[in-house]
Amino acid sequence: MKYHRIPDETIRRLPVYLRGLLFLAEGGNANVSSQDLADFIGSNPWQIRKDFSYFGGFGIRGVGYNVNKLTKEIKKILKLNNVLKAALVGAGNLGSAVLAYPGFKIYGFDVAVAFDNDLRKVGKKINNIEIKDVSKLRTLKKRQIKLAIIAVPHQAAQQIADSLVKAGVTGILNFSPCYISAPKKVKVITIDIAMEIARLPYYMPAN
Amino acid sequence: MKYHRIPDETIRRLPVYLRGLLFLAEGGNANVSSQDLADFIGSNPWQIRKDFSYFGGFGIRGVGYNVNKLTKEIKKILKLNNVLKAALVGAGNLGSAVLAYPGFKIYGFDVAVAFDNDLRKVGKKINNIEIKDVSKLRTLKKRQIKLAIIAVPHQAAQQIADSLVKAGVTGILNFSPCYISAPKKVKVITIDIAMEIARLPYYMPAN
Repeated sequence: MKYHRIPDETIRRLPVYLRGLLFLAEGGNANVSSQDLADFIGSNPWQIRKDFSYFGGFGIRGVGYNVNKLTKEIKKILKLNNVLKAALVGAGNLGSAVLAYPGFKIYGFDVAVAFDNDLRKVGKKINNIEIKDVSKLRTLKKRQIKLAIIAVPHQAAQQIADSLVKAGVTGILNFSPCYISAPKKVKVITIDIAMEIARLPYYMPAN
Repeated sequence: MKYHRIPDETIRRLPVYLRGLLFLAEGGNANVSSQDLADFIGSNPWQIRKDFSYFGGFGIRGVGYNVNKLTKEIKKILKLNNVLKAALVGAGNLGSAVLAYPGFKIYGFDVAVAFDNDLRKVGKKINNIEIKDVSKLRTLKKRQIKLAIIAVPHQAAQQIADSLVKAGVTGILNFSPCYISAPKKVKVITIDIAMEIARLPYYMPAN
């Protein structure tokens, strides 16, 4: 099946649904209604049904969704049905948190290698992942790693991104608080942890 | 002015616009078109105009937006026009990254205090912010801090959230990979860094 004109917002929500489904499956749920899923993840059932409608809808009226089947479908849409190797650049506080983070595995990610420019870190391991010299980024091509996480100071982020693109990387998750420019075929997602907190006060009571 | 039924997605995008405007202002831009702003942040001009239309629109046809005025308007909508004190709970790798992160200030956040249960950390400072014993969370009420960032292991997250709510916190940014339940008046935003990477492969070329 070909999917046409899927809104980015829908794609942004699919991992949220996937995560909810993985938790629900762990809790022993075989079927789930859009209302249950919505309650669990803090969303709206109509939103879920609308998002799923782009893919032909997945549920049976009155029965709801089969949790395992839906999980597989979403993984397929998001191209998460195979293990994906990723590289981390920058093993500072944030990078170390990324390496120690257990959450990547549930989506099928394997952070296979890390890079840093601090020679005191190079050769050491964090969470069993070896830290290599950042000058060796070009080895990513041979390792067939196309996915990278940038957690370096913002002054260095663009240069690192350029090197990653040269090494064949086509997907970048950028934690540096800056805009990165890259060729069109390369997808860059920037996460600014301050930006997420910036929408909290809107929802908080005045006093 | 009262704002009715503003979609959550619009509120989610406003900090993205705000961030772009702050960068553009720094670069010396006095006016900006929706097209320029869209190009800069990687969005669409129609999306920006639609989001702004909920607030009556801010631009003048052919002239675009006044950067400073628009910045102020968005800050007002997001209730970011005053400095907001925040507390951090959990000074591990991720928490330390939060404390060292320069990006909170530009939105008007002041991470004023941190808490941890590791007595070797208590009393020390990271980035000039003192780390207090986590058993002292109730002091947040006296400090009038209503905003908290949770960066503890997921097993402890719910308990910390409960204590924060008891101490009067009404806004929580949760970095722990779990669902937190809280009373309705408390807004919880959960960031799962793995979830963000989960939508990258969708956009990456097959080979």
